[in-house]
Amino acid sequence: MKKLFFFIALFAAVSSVQAQQALFGASKVVSPEINSDKTVTFRLVAPKAVTVEVKGEFMPTETRMVNGRTMEVETYGQMKEGKDGVWEYTTPKPVAPEMYTYSFIVDGRTTNDPSNVYLKRDMATLTNILYVDGDPRIDLYKVQAVPHGTVTKMWYPSACQGFDRRLTVYTPAGYETSKKKYPVFYLLHGAGGDEESWCTQGRAIQIMDNLIASGKAEPMIVVITNGNITQEAAPGFGSDNAMPGTGLTRVTGVWETNFTEVVNFIDKNFRTIPKKQSRAIAGLSMGGFHSLHISKYYPDMFNYVGLFSAAITMGANGVSNGPDVPIYRDFEGTLKNFFSKKPALYYIAIGKTDFLYNANKDFRALLDKEGYPYEYLETDGGHIWKNWRIYLTEFAPKLFK
Amino acid sequence: MKKLFFFIALFAAVSSVQAQQALFGASKVVSPEINSDKTVTFRLVAPKAVTVEVKGEFMPTETRMVNGRTMEVETYGQMKEGKDGVWEYTTPKPVAPEMYTYSFIVDGRTTNDPSNVYLKRDMATLTNILYVDGDPRIDLYKVQAVPHGTVTKMWYPSACQGFDRRLTVYTPAGYETSKKKYPVFYLLHGAGGDEESWCTQGRAIQIMDNLIASGKAEPMIVVITNGNITQEAAPGFGSDNAMPGTGLTRVTGVWETNFTEVVNFIDKNFRTIPKKQSRAIAGLSMGGFHSLHISKYYPDMFNYVGLFSAAITMGANGVSNGPDVPIYRDFEGTLKNFFSKKPALYYIAIGKTDFLYNANKDFRALLDKEGYPYEYLETDGGHIWKNWRIYLTEFAPKLFK
Repeated sequence: MKKLFFFIALFAAVSSVQAQQALFGASKVVSPEINSDKTVTFRLVAPKAVTVEVKGEFMPTETRMVNGRTMEVETYGQMKEGKDGVWEYTTPKPVAPEMYTYSFIVDGRTTNDPSNVYLKRDMATLTNILYVDGDPRIDLYKVQAVPHGTVTKMWYPSACQGFDRRLTVYTPAGYETSKKKYPVFYLLHGAGGDEESWCTQGRAIQIMDNLIASGKAEPMIVVITNGNITQEAAPGFGSDNAMPGTGLTRVTGVWETNFTEVVNFIDKNFRTIPKKQSRAIAGLSMGGFHSLHISKYYPDMFNYVGLFSAAITMGANGVSNGPDVPIYRDFEGTLKNFFSKKPALYYIAIGKTDFLYNANKDFRALLDKEGYPYEYLETDGGHIWKNWRIYLTEFAPKLFK
Repeated sequence: MKKLFFFIALFAAVSSVQAQQALFGASKVVSPEINSDKTVTFRLVAPKAVTVEVKGEFMPTETRMVNGRTMEVETYGQMKEGKDGVWEYTTPKPVAPEMYTYSFIVDGRTTNDPSNVYLKRDMATLTNILYVDGDPRIDLYKVQAVPHGTVTKMWYPSACQGFDRRLTVYTPAGYETSKKKYPVFYLLHGAGGDEESWCTQGRAIQIMDNLIASGKAEPMIVVITNGNITQEAAPGFGSDNAMPGTGLTRVTGVWETNFTEVVNFIDKNFRTIPKKQSRAIAGLSMGGFHSLHISKYYPDMFNYVGLFSAAITMGANGVSNGPDVPIYRDFEGTLKNFFSKKPALYYIAIGKTDFLYNANKDFRALLDKEGYPYEYLETDGGHIWKNWRIYLTEFAPKLFK
């Protein structure tokens, strides 16, 4: 039988407008390009555009009034049009090593860089990611040639909600073939996030892979939950199949009070060490608030607690605009009870310019007054993922040792 | 201790330009909107734009010459600017039930719909997804309130490559708590795809959840592999951390010959029934080519074979521009040997206008001539995900019964 056709014909399909599968992800320009002097060049093909700008965390800042507050605000880089409608911008100074996000603004509309495959998604907003090397910390955020843990998206039955809810479970490399039992670290997102956030912006999977591979962190299971209790899953992954609304994440105490559902599910479905000494909980912003309340309401559950830029609220009724529910009541009493059981680690981290800085300062004053021991890390910057990634890389190595 | 601050302050952070975490995904317009008459309205806020168009598979087509071939090409919808820079377009006719993809073109640049959280990603290209209900098949593609299987991203050691490679494993609802062993269905992507494609464009997770929940398909493990053998993982998930190149997926026979690595890994790490009678393999386009060659080269491994729009090549040396390696040799002889062992199902599906239609027709003529039994499904349309989703929903219920 003769040859029927050349395999190359398969690839000819790319020229067919009916071929929905993008056979090539080719881009006409390289962007971003990190130059030898560590400046970064961005490029976009936009022959019809009138203005093209780049915005990102690496841009120089200027002081501006924003909503009545004086703030350091990132300036936009004005891209210049060159040959063939290719717009270009090079940062005026070398960019410090970090994992950044950036976007283009074409004639006033924010858009992503079509040349860059690294993106993070928040709801329907896509933002590009830029790694600038030169600090060992940045290497922790990247996929390295080390043994990789397994990332599982699964659903647990939520009795309090009456439906199944999605979570992410990281099991360390070797979990499947070892017979060992592992400690568990529960890692919580902030307002606006979900069970995907620590995996995308947070780089928690890569951080854990790399910390464990280098021996800096113990092999552990990491459970990344969805703290928006009325939500089945991250937008697009739940059964409503509807466009997600714009409502606030409601702070009702239901999530925190029923956190035992999650812990029981994990202990049932994974080879865990189901004991306080082998459990940690930490969260960022709203997740720090959750971690604070869950840990003190269930004082025999977690031996390690991390509050990353935590939205700490105190007072007789706990959350001032939350309902009067048991888990928020008697803030100081439950905290006292928790510390009387001598947790292995209470860890607080926040940035100097975080809008929650003073709330955390007041909380630390309370801990100091009562003589409750804690570790404290203060960094530059505000309420940003850069800091939360740092806090995770600092916190995880302290666990289960 | 007095209340320190109101929790609402947390949400005020959204007004801070330094708050990198999008607390709200709010959009100013609703897009897409499916109207009561099943027309669809698209909206985009773009006050500075000169032209805004929408392109999608639901648009009326016109006949054009493309690369010397006469083709039906989708027209673009010209959006019109209304109040406050909101551009709008409503389809002239009702849109038939389907899962579609679409994009906006603003002044010539393709961009995604910032109001729509449903997106698929191919490399760095993002495309929005639109569901139009009204056919039970579409319901299979959506997350329903049924028991959900678990989706695992894990890495297997590839001895032939000397590095670990990423794959996706679906285990059906109940896997974790049952003691049962399960059959395994290996599902392969096409050129340009990877271990993510069947999960995103293919909706394989939702299709399996829904088919199993309704009793139409047997509970089974589904393994979604990466057939680009020189690649660790989908772009952005591998350790190169580099921008992916634009090279073709090379067809070398290495992937197919070493497919046993995958099967052995799955049998070792999951509760499988490690027998031919409980194994299926299917793939689309290049993955159909892979499935064809793997199944006949390992005739005792798969009892069910599905070729979806398969890139079938035949001839004395198999792939005409591939190397002369054992797995491609003696096409007809290995096929004869495979069929002599009486597989439970050999399934071929293709669209009437697929550019591989004739190759598949010739292949069926060979099967007919030799009297090899197979099932055949012919659909409208070409080499498109719409068809591959249909083939999966038709094929999976036939397995392991």
